Amino acid sequence: MNNNGILVVISGFSGAGKGTLVRKLMEKYDNYALSISMTTRDAREGEEDGVHYFFVNHKKFEQTIANDGLLEYASYCGNYYGTPREYVEKQIAAGKDVILEIEVQGALQIKKKFPNTLLLFVTPPSAKELAQRLRDRHTETDEQIAGRLSRATEEVEWISKYDFLVINDDIERSVDRLNDIIVAAHNVPIRQQEMINEIKKDLEVMTKGEL
Amino acid sequence: MNNNGILVVISGFSGAGKGTLVRKLMEKYDNYALSISMTTRDAREGEEDGVHYFFVNHKKFEQTIANDGLLEYASYCGNYYGTPREYVEKQIAAGKDVILEIEVQGALQIKKKFPNTLLLFVTPPSAKELAQRLRDRHTETDEQIAGRLSRATEEVEWISKYDFLVINDDIERSVDRLNDIIVAAHNVPIRQQEMINEIKKDLEVMTKGEL
Repeated sequence: MNNNGILVVISGFSGAGKGTLVRKLMEKYDNYALSISMTTRDAREGEEDGVHYFFVNHKKFEQTIANDGLLEYASYCGNYYGTPREYVEKQIAAGKDVILEIEVQGALQIKKKFPNTLLLFVTPPSAKELAQRLRDRHTETDEQIAGRLSRATEEVEWISKYDFLVINDDIERSVDRLNDIIVAAHNVPIRQQEMINEIKKDLEVMTKGEL
Repeated sequence: MNNNGILVVISGFSGAGKGTLVRKLMEKYDNYALSISMTTRDAREGEEDGVHYFFVNHKKFEQTIANDGLLEYASYCGNYYGTPREYVEKQIAAGKDVILEIEVQGALQIKKKFPNTLLLFVTPPSAKELAQRLRDRHTETDEQIAGRLSRATEEVEWISKYDFLVINDDIERSVDRLNDIIVAAHNVPIRQQEMINEIKKDLEVMTKGEL
């Protein structure tokens, strides 16, 4: 069996509970490493360099692009955001599954470049529940909530491009479900290609009577 | 969440241990129903009608074909073999996952007609192990074993069409792995289409401000 880890990209509606799910997954299970994004935007209060993001200047970011040091990147409102390649590749080679929380466009970019990336989409069990969770945060105006729901209406069209849907109904149960899905996804043929090739090669030798 | 069961088609190399895996899965977990094939061939010693096969005559089989009563069928050596549709559909509607053990060509036929069928391929961890298991049976001549290995060499080309590979290294562990894979596979978007459509519809209503 292939002992490499896999790259797991997690997207989902704003308010679906992705952040909590990922945090609890990291706490509860040993086999994960969290990918940290690089950005040129300023750190907000409470954000630490190397924990929430790697904060760099434009020059450093563009050098990293030029050195093919990012798996994907995008620019929003004049700032760059990207996924450093080296950390992901090291962890995968060490057998860790690397978790990357990223929005839909970035997720599809990565899948296109690296087809054995696992794409997971987190959703509450219903739209009503999603709206309720956004209201329960008490941190956003009605207008901001409407904006997030409107964005969800666009994102829902992309769910069919994802490998699995993680229905976040109960947080504890959903963490285990998320882990079960990732473990199962190791057994997809594209992720066991080395083993399949070896069986194929050995069978060919055997049926030629050379073994 | 969609509470329907799914159709799970299990194929694999002769000697991979499919039969034992399926039997143990049925014993250990409650949520499965086993699909029984219909055939026109004679019952062999020890085979029971309604347990190993439904044994019918050619006329009855052809009537069943005419009534669209089979999910798939094929003819080998002058006899028909097929999968009765009614039993599968009833069990799926009742929330059971239906297990169907069938060879590669039939599996791909079913997947083409019913895209949300789950295709699982069972393999030992290596070709050497496969050959060893075939020899350990002590029921077949060297020629028959060579025939099975030669067939495996053809089948290996089709593994990439399967949704998951079940690596049967240790029988107890593999039964649990098989169950975990089937449980996880319920969360693929194509099998949650009803829920996705409902979220989509509700989000559209909400973002029009009607809710």
